[in-house]
This record gives sequence, structure tokens and C-alpha cells, in this order.
Amino acid sequence: MGILLPGFADEWVLKRVHTAIGQAPIRMVVRGGADVSPQGVSPVATVVIDDRKTLAGLLRDPEISFGDAYMDGKLEVEGDLVRFLEAIYRSMESSPTIGKWYSRLASQWLDVWQDNTPSGSRKNIHRHYDLGNDFYKLWLDDQLVYTCAYFPTPSSTLEHAQVAKMDHVCRKLRLEPGETVVEAGCGWGALALHMAREYGVSVKAYNVSREQIAFARQRARAEGLSDRVEYIEDDYRAISGQFDVFVSVGMLEHVGSDHFQELSDIIHRSIGDKGRGLLHFIGRNSPAVFSRWIRKQIFPGAHTPSLRAALQILEPKDFSVLDVENLRMHYAKTLEHWLERFESSRQQVAAMYDSRFVRAWRLYLAGSLAAFRVGHLQLFQILFTGSQRQPIFWTRDPLYAADTKPAVEKVREKVKWTHAMS
Amino acid sequence: MGILLPGFADEWVLKRVHTAIGQAPIRMVVRGGADVSPQGVSPVATVVIDDRKTLAGLLRDPEISFGDAYMDGKLEVEGDLVRFLEAIYRSMESSPTIGKWYSRLASQWLDVWQDNTPSGSRKNIHRHYDLGNDFYKLWLDDQLVYTCAYFPTPSSTLEHAQVAKMDHVCRKLRLEPGETVVEAGCGWGALALHMAREYGVSVKAYNVSREQIAFARQRARAEGLSDRVEYIEDDYRAISGQFDVFVSVGMLEHVGSDHFQELSDIIHRSIGDKGRGLLHFIGRNSPAVFSRWIRKQIFPGAHTPSLRAALQILEPKDFSVLDVENLRMHYAKTLEHWLERFESSRQQVAAMYDSRFVRAWRLYLAGSLAAFRVGHLQLFQILFTGSQRQPIFWTRDPLYAADTKPAVEKVREKVKWTHAMS
Repeated sequence: MGILLPGFADEWVLKRVHTAIGQAPIRMVVRGGADVSPQGVSPVATVVIDDRKTLAGLLRDPEISFGDAYMDGKLEVEGDLVRFLEAIYRSMESSPTIGKWYSRLASQWLDVWQDNTPSGSRKNIHRHYDLGNDFYKLWLDDQLVYTCAYFPTPSSTLEHAQVAKMDHVCRKLRLEPGETVVEAGCGWGALALHMAREYGVSVKAYNVSREQIAFARQRARAEGLSDRVEYIEDDYRAISGQFDVFVSVGMLEHVGSDHFQELSDIIHRSIGDKGRGLLHFIGRNSPAVFSRWIRKQIFPGAHTPSLRAALQILEPKDFSVLDVENLRMHYAKTLEHWLERFESSRQQVAAMYDSRFVRAWRLYLAGSLAAFRVGHLQLFQILFTGSQRQPIFWTRDPLYAADTKPAVEKVREKVKWTHAMS
Repeated sequence: MGILLPGFADEWVLKRVHTAIGQAPIRMVVRGGADVSPQGVSPVATVVIDDRKTLAGLLRDPEISFGDAYMDGKLEVEGDLVRFLEAIYRSMESSPTIGKWYSRLASQWLDVWQDNTPSGSRKNIHRHYDLGNDFYKLWLDDQLVYTCAYFPTPSSTLEHAQVAKMDHVCRKLRLEPGETVVEAGCGWGALALHMAREYGVSVKAYNVSREQIAFARQRARAEGLSDRVEYIEDDYRAISGQFDVFVSVGMLEHVGSDHFQELSDIIHRSIGDKGRGLLHFIGRNSPAVFSRWIRKQIFPGAHTPSLRAALQILEPKDFSVLDVENLRMHYAKTLEHWLERFESSRQQVAAMYDSRFVRAWRLYLAGSLAAFRVGHLQLFQILFTGSQRQPIFWTRDPLYAADTKPAVEKVREKVKWTHAMS
């Protein structure tokens, strides 16, 4: 702004931005000015850019600038936001390398800034998970499970699918009454309660989020499970004691590959060579930097390792991988539910925070959904045992046998009061 | 021999050998001389060593010397050979590093000597697989499937389990009629025939073993499937053309990690970003050198990568891993059947070759069985797709649904003539 440039300069910049994002089938417009449409295809959506300053930002650092401008309302997407992001992600696979060195460098800088040391983790986790339980209650399921669900069929409800996921994890681990489990990163505590209630195990569950731990403890008391589920407000690095089972659902994303060796040591210290464990995490087909915008605005310190990178946690201790399942499309489905519920609650969210917050979280949820749909993100469950233990199953049949399938509806009856609580 | 040494010198050497193998619960005896028993436990078996020269060899290079002495009949194991080897493998995990540097160096030398270049592979494969189909018919199943079977229950027959394995592979890949499949390393051709006959696909199957290819072609003609199954006597590096599916069952062991990049390129060239594939191979929990004795006497050029190492084939091409299944105990069960049949046929084998050959193969089969039982070897099946393809399954349920289970007995009726053939 302030600089007088003829209109064709805007168009030149717009075309460069369009090239930088790989000629995606989208229309780009500067409000009241230049207009670039894709060649020979009808556009998936139209991006309307408010002004030249926003346009210039897109050229300098498309990822951060797009997110920030969207958040600030300086840029609108007319059309389906998720489909738009899918189109961008797909086209960027074949895009030129413009800005990639910058992106890599900036990503490394973020890694240092947001490093998941014990104190860094506490700060990072606090910023995301302590936004207030009331906020998460607006759009998560009634048990507040903030990880990929397992949909027995694509039309299962989110509530059903979250119970089915918890049960899928328990059945893979073949939990037996009286066994001991340590959970690293327990969120609002639903899985630990499910394991104790449905499988009769004792659970020690760790989490550095104060609000989540407080909520989880209240639920355990209300369910009369406090004697068998202990919630500890601490870092996974503080885990002590010996257990039959190690489980971690949706925490690896906050560990970071620089700390895989530490995690490896902790798992081995916890279950030795005769225990078993399960890691459930967002991963990738091959190494790539995680969205800088999401790390800046939503999820500080987030990492998504490739499957091969994640095996750096298990290989040094000679752990034996029994089973890996990729549930990518289940996370896309989970995010569809979350995004829909979030949109239905956007006025309440705006009243809690502001419209900038609403726009940032919409972009984060829509962007994650698009990333799972196009395959930029994957969801891996790795089941493993210590090197001295025989495999858990002969075949996987029992996991899928109809007569031993989880009675999800029965479980749901027991927990249906939860949403009203606290 | 020839050197006059007092008896206590033998005992000193025997004790050193016993320490080198980690104080396994076994008794060691030099015929008519020294005798070392484990402390405080009853021995699993007794090793009887013929003479001092053999004893000295065990101290110098236990692995090679033990195998060669057993093969030459200079050393006997009194008791259960498999249990004896399991005890040795378990105790060696905690053994001192005596001889480990030597073992590593000697292993590297073998790697160079037996490198799996195109000509090296041909030599290596010829030495093992071209021993004569009549030999393998004595102890494999009637379709000559020389890879890990899939036992629906531990008491399934080997014949049933090999058909179930082939079907498990086909169902994981969800083959559809009319699709094209390329198979790298097809053995005696049973899987290619199964895919074409039961799933209506066309298969191009590669193998450098002349005897195996000749047998496979004859079977295809006899079954009237020559128009849909093409057997090509060539290296996997010669694979050309585009396919819907890439499959390789039991070939990775002959590729070697130095050639993973080549294999990666070939898979990507064959199925692009929209195909799917399955790798079935003997692997490990963590990197380790493969038995030098087996490579020297039985399987030149053999390698067993860790799961993480094997992912070096898939990660560079952004392939998406959908499913990993570890069938370790199924390979132990398969080897129990093979070893039992082999022992029943040992007189015929001795007549074909000699007793040295019988002893070498007994040790190889028993050693492999012991290694799968104790977990030194694993069996991985990795199912993957190109980066541009949606996952094959919503959940794995259809793989295990009773009403879509393979009609193994029906398949067996169609192939039961095979054993009599050629």
C-alpha cells in the first residue's frame, strides 16, 4: 500500500504466487483488482485477497502468510475450504522449489524455539490443551477424546467411533485383568478409564496439561475408579516403575525426533524385554516438515515422523513390531465430525475468544482434514512386544471375530453422563 | 592332535568355548576326555566333540566351526537339536564380545564375496534353488511353496496353510479380475497360479532359478493358465512394464540392503503412485549379521533386514504403508513341518547327495526354527500403496469375515495333482 503500482504488477505477483503453489485449480483475485484463473479447468474455489500488502506476503512466505491473512480476515476463500486446501496440497507436490529453502530454514528455527524439552513441552502443551475444557466440549465427543477415532463403518457416530477406537487399542494389546498399564499423554483420561473399567487393569496415566488432568481425576472419582486409575500431572520423562503394558495415543506428535532416544529408554525401563506396547500417532509416508503455520498459531512443537523414523524408538531396544495399522481415512472422518461440530458452535467459540480465533481453528481443522484426505498425513498404530516375549496373537482373527466384538453401546451407557459433568 | 597336552588344557579350552557362547545350559564333552556341565541346571543337551582339532576350531570361530564340524560328523548333539540351538541363541544374547569383531569382519568379507549383483544373484540362487526339484519335493508341501505359511490354527496342515498364506496375500491386496500383477521371485510358481486361478488377474512372474521356472511353466500349461501367467527366467532388475500390483514373497532375503535403492526404483517404475504392493520377507527386530555358516554352506548372499531397514525401499518413493503383520510363529510352525518331513526323508536325501548334505540341511532347518522361536528372526508382510492412491480397506474386517474366508479345501482339490507332476 502506499506505493503506486499499475494493475498489471498485481497480476504478475498473483501469477507468481499461483506458480509457487503449483498451479492449483483455483482462482485468485485481489479485491477490486487483478484476477487469475486456472487454465482450462473450472476453479475449485476462489481466493479473495484484501490488499497488496497481503498479496506481497503470499509471495514472500505463502504458508505463514496465507494462514495469518486468513485468520485476520484479510483473505477469504469462496467455496469449500477443505476442497480448496486439498487442491493446494495436491498441486504443491509438483510445485517448483520457490521458497523451499526458506521454509526449511524457518522450520528449523521453529524447532529450536519450540523444542520439547521438559519445560518447553509444558509451555507447548499448556498453550494448546489448556485453552479451556469448555471450548473442547463444544466440538469433541462427549468423552473428550482428542485423537483419531476408529469407525466400524463410515456412518458410525463419533461417540461410537471413539469408544470403538479405545477398545481396538485394548484388544490389540490383549489386556488381562490385574495387569498394570502406563499411559504417556492421557488427554482428558478417557482411555485410562476405559482400560480400567472394561478390562480390569490398573493404569498410571501421565499428562502435563493441568486442565486435562483435573478433569480426568474428577471423572475417575465420579466413576469410582480412582483406586485403579492414577492421573499424574507430569512429563512422560518422569514415568517411573515397571508395567506390563506401555501405551501412548496421540503423544508422539509432541515428542519430536530429537527426543525419541529418551522415549525409547523410558519405554524399555517401563516394560523391559517382556512387556508389550502400542504407539498411536500422526505420521507420514516420508520425512517432511510439519506445517509452520500450525506450529506458530495452533500446535507449538508439533512433529509428524515417518513410520521409519518412528521405528527409531523401538529398534534400539530390540522391540518386536507385531502389527502396524494405518488409519488415515479414519482421521479424515474424525476431522469431518470435529469440523462440522466446530462450525455449529462458531458463535459460542467467538464469544469465548474472538472471530480471529474461530478463523484460525477452522483453518487448522480444515487443513488437517485435507492433509489426511490427500495423504500428506497418516495415522499409524504400532503394536510391539519386548524381545523376550512371544507374540500376543496366533492370528488377528480374534480382533475381528463378531462374537468377541466390543459391546460399544453398553460401554456408552456407562459413560453417557460425562458430558454434563464439571 | 599330535600335540601332547594334559587333559586339563582341554577342559580350559572347553570352558572358554562355553563362556563364549554365553554359559548356555548345555554339557560339553571331548570324546574320551574333558567334560564341562552347566552350573546348577540340568543340561538341555550334550555336545560331544570328536577331537582336539575340532575343539580348537570352536574357540577360534564358534559359528563356522560348529556348523562345519556338525556337518562333517566331527561333533554330535545328544538331545533335541532344536532345543539345544534355542538355548545357545538365548544365551548368546548376553554373551561377551569374544570373537564378535572377527565375526563382523568375516561377515563383511562374505558380503563382498556373495554380493547380489545380477551375476552374483544368479550364482547364489542357482546354488540353493537348483539343487533339484526332487529334493524339495521330499519335504515341502505338494505345491512347493518355500516360504512362511499362514496357519489358520496351529494344527492346520502344511498344505492347507500354504494355500491360506497365498490367499491371505491376495486378500490383503484385494485383487480384482482383470488386474495385472508383477511378482519378483516366484519360486516354483504357486502364488502366481493362485492369483490367476482364484482372482482372475494376469501375472508376470520373475525368477533366476532355471529349474524353478521350468517347473512353474509346466504347471501353468497343465492348469491351462499359460495365457494369464507368464514366467520369466530373469532377475527382478529386468522387470519392465506397468502393473496394478507388485508382489514379492520371500525374495528380499536375496536382495541385500546395498540393492534396496534399485528395488525401490523398480517397484515405483512398475506401479507408479497409484498401484499397490506387498513385501513378505524374513526380517529382524534390529540390524544384525545373518548367520555366516548358513551363508557359507546353504544360502549364499542371504540378508535379513530390520523392519526399519526394509522401509528404505518404500520411503524414498513416498509409498504409504497400510499394514504390517509379523508372522514369526507361523514360520516356526512351517519349519517344524519341513524339519519333520526332512527327517522322514533323510535316507532318500542321503542317497541323492550324501550324509554330510543331510547333516548340513538338518542344521540349517533346525537353526532357522530355533531362530524364529526365540525371536532372532521375524517374518514381516508389508502392504503398501502408491502415494496417490486411497487406502484399500476401510477396516481390516473383510480380511477376517467368516463368510468371505478362503475356501482353502476347494482350492486344494484343484491343485492336488501337482505333486505327482513332472
